[in-house]
Amino acid sequence: MPEPTPLPIRILATAQALPRRVVTTDELAPQLGLSAEVALKRTGVAERRWVSDGETALSLGAQAAREAVAQAGLELEQIDTLLNASGSQLQPIPDGAALLARELGLRGAATYSLHGTCLSFLLALNHAALLIASGQARHVLIISSEAGSLGLNRGQPESTLLIGDGAAAVVVGPATKPAQGIAAVRIETYPEGADSTQIRGGGSLLHPKDCVPEDLTFDMQGLKVLKLASEVVPDFLERLQTGLSRSLVGIDRVIPHQASQAGLNLMTRYGWPAERIEVTLPTLGNVIAASLPLTLHQALKGGRAKAGDTLLLVGTGAGLIAGGLILHL
Amino acid sequence: MPEPTPLPIRILATAQALPRRVVTTDELAPQLGLSAEVALKRTGVAERRWVSDGETALSLGAQAAREAVAQAGLELEQIDTLLNASGSQLQPIPDGAALLARELGLRGAATYSLHGTCLSFLLALNHAALLIASGQARHVLIISSEAGSLGLNRGQPESTLLIGDGAAAVVVGPATKPAQGIAAVRIETYPEGADSTQIRGGGSLLHPKDCVPEDLTFDMQGLKVLKLASEVVPDFLERLQTGLSRSLVGIDRVIPHQASQAGLNLMTRYGWPAERIEVTLPTLGNVIAASLPLTLHQALKGGRAKAGDTLLLVGTGAGLIAGGLILHL
Repeated sequence: MPEPTPLPIRILATAQALPRRVVTTDELAPQLGLSAEVALKRTGVAERRWVSDGETALSLGAQAAREAVAQAGLELEQIDTLLNASGSQLQPIPDGAALLARELGLRGAATYSLHGTCLSFLLALNHAALLIASGQARHVLIISSEAGSLGLNRGQPESTLLIGDGAAAVVVGPATKPAQGIAAVRIETYPEGADSTQIRGGGSLLHPKDCVPEDLTFDMQGLKVLKLASEVVPDFLERLQTGLSRSLVGIDRVIPHQASQAGLNLMTRYGWPAERIEVTLPTLGNVIAASLPLTLHQALKGGRAKAGDTLLLVGTGAGLIAGGLILHL
Repeated sequence: MPEPTPLPIRILATAQALPRRVVTTDELAPQLGLSAEVALKRTGVAERRWVSDGETALSLGAQAAREAVAQAGLELEQIDTLLNASGSQLQPIPDGAALLARELGLRGAATYSLHGTCLSFLLALNHAALLIASGQARHVLIISSEAGSLGLNRGQPESTLLIGDGAAAVVVGPATKPAQGIAAVRIETYPEGADSTQIRGGGSLLHPKDCVPEDLTFDMQGLKVLKLASEVVPDFLERLQTGLSRSLVGIDRVIPHQASQAGLNLMTRYGWPAERIEVTLPTLGNVIAASLPLTLHQALKGGRAKAGDTLLLVGTGAGLIAGGLILHL
C-alpha cells in the first residue's frame, strides 16, 4: 500500500453546548450506594452535565453548530456538508444529520452520519479532510451531540458515574499554510471486545418492541475493556507513528477520548507526560462521541493548542475500536 | 470550489444474501384488506423476502460479505476497511461494523458505519473511493444489510407492501485502467421532508422506554415524498452532470434506489429510456440501503453492466436526501 497522502485542512472553529444541569458526584454517589470519595476516586469524575427541561441532543447539537459557524466567520449557506458524528441516534429514520439540518435551517447541503461510537468525531474529521482534499467539499460542519444519560442503568454505578451529556461542533476548511492538516490516521477494530461495552436492545437484532428495560441501557465491563486496550493499543500506536508507544515523538498535545480515568492513566505508560495530555473527564465525564471535540475545543480555547502545533487525537471506543489522528494546526 | 478529482477505483466483486422466506403480494394483500391486483398495481411489488427462523441482518450481511470477498479472489485478511452501510442499526452500541467484523472473524481492520438511510451504500462507496485514492485503504468491504420487516406498521399497507429484507456486499479496490472509477458524486438534503418517512421512536429524542408500539414502526407518506422529490431532483441532477435531467447523456445504465414504483416512474420524465434502468422492485421490494447494491449486483451478474460501462447510481432516501454517483466500470 502506498504511503497515504497528507490531507491539507484547517480547523476554522470549534464550539460547545452543555446542558444547564450540573450533576455532582457528591449528589449522585449516595443514590448509587457509594460515598462521594470512593465514587470520585474510582471514576475521576467530580461532576457531569445531564440534559433536563426539554434539552435534547438535537437542541444542543444545533446550538453548538450555530456558534461554530459564526466563530468561523461563515454564513450557514457556506456549509456544503454537515456530518453528524454522534455515538447515539436521534431517531432511527431519518438520519440525524437531516434532523440537525432542519433544526439549523440548512437546505441543499450534503448531510449524513459517520458512526464508530466514541470515535465518530475522529472518523468524521478524517472524512471531512478527504472530501476537502478531493475537492468534493470546502466547508464541512461536524456535529457530535450526546444525551447518553437517558440510557443509563442506575444499577451500574461504574457507567452511571461516568457518562455525561453535551455537544460540540467543529468547522473544517482547506489548509492555508504548508504542512497544515492531517499527517496520519489509523483505525483498528478488535471485535472480541464487542460485548464489553454495549446496549444490546433497540436495533434489529433485538427489536425495541421485544426488549425488557435493562436491554435498553448501557452495560460496561470496564476491566475487560481496559485489558483488551492494554494489549492492542501499543502496537496500534506504533503503526500510527513509529515510536509513539514509547514517547510523544513530535506531538505537542494529546487530545484523548475521555473513556475513563483508568483509560487516561494508560497513556502515561507510553511515556507521554501527563502535562501534555488534555483532560475534561473531571468536569464533563465521558460524553461518548462528543468527548473528543469537547476536549479539542477546551485545548484551543485555553491556548494549550495553537497554530503550528501538532496534535494527537486518540482513543478507544465500544467495538473495541482504536483510533488515532495526527493533526498539524 | 475546484472541480473534484475523479477517484480511481474498481468494483472487485459483488454478492447478495436473501432471506429464504418469499412473501408474495397474493399472500400479503388480503391481510391488509386489499386485493392482490390493487396491491400489485399500487406498489409494483409482486413478492419480497422477509427474515424468518433465526435469520438476521447480521447473518445475511456476513453471508453476502464472505461471498463477495471470495468472488474478489481475496482472503479476509486482505480487507483493510469494513464499512457498514445499512439503513437500520443492529444494536445501539457497539457500531454494527464491529458486530459484522466479529461475525466474519475480521480482526485489526478499520470498521465503522456510514449512514444516510436508503443512500448509505452510495455514501460508503464514495468514502471507500476517497480512502483508496488517498492511500488510506486498498481493499474496502462494504456491507448493506436490512431486516426492515421487523419494524413495519401492519396498519399501513403502503409501507408494509413495499419493504423487503436482504443484504448485499461489495468489495472495492484501486483502478487498473485509466478513467476507471468515480467521475462525479453529489449529495443534497432537503430536510423539510424529514417527517415524511420516519421511525419516530427508538433514539434519544424519543427513548424506546417511553415509546408506544406505533412509535417504533415505519411511517411513510409516499405522496409527500414524491412531491418533494419531483421538485428538487431535476436541479439536483443538473448539478451532478449537466443535461442529466433531460437525457441519459453518457450513461449506459441507471442503478436506482428502488424507492417505490412511483419513484422509478419519475425517472422516465427525465428522458431516461426505461430499458436502461435496472429494476429489482417487483421481486425484492424496497430493501432500504441494500436496494442499491442488490440492484448493482443484479445488473453486473446479468451482464447488463460490464467493464467499460458508465453507471449512474441514483436515488432519494428519508431526510429527504438525494444522491447520485457516476461510476466508470
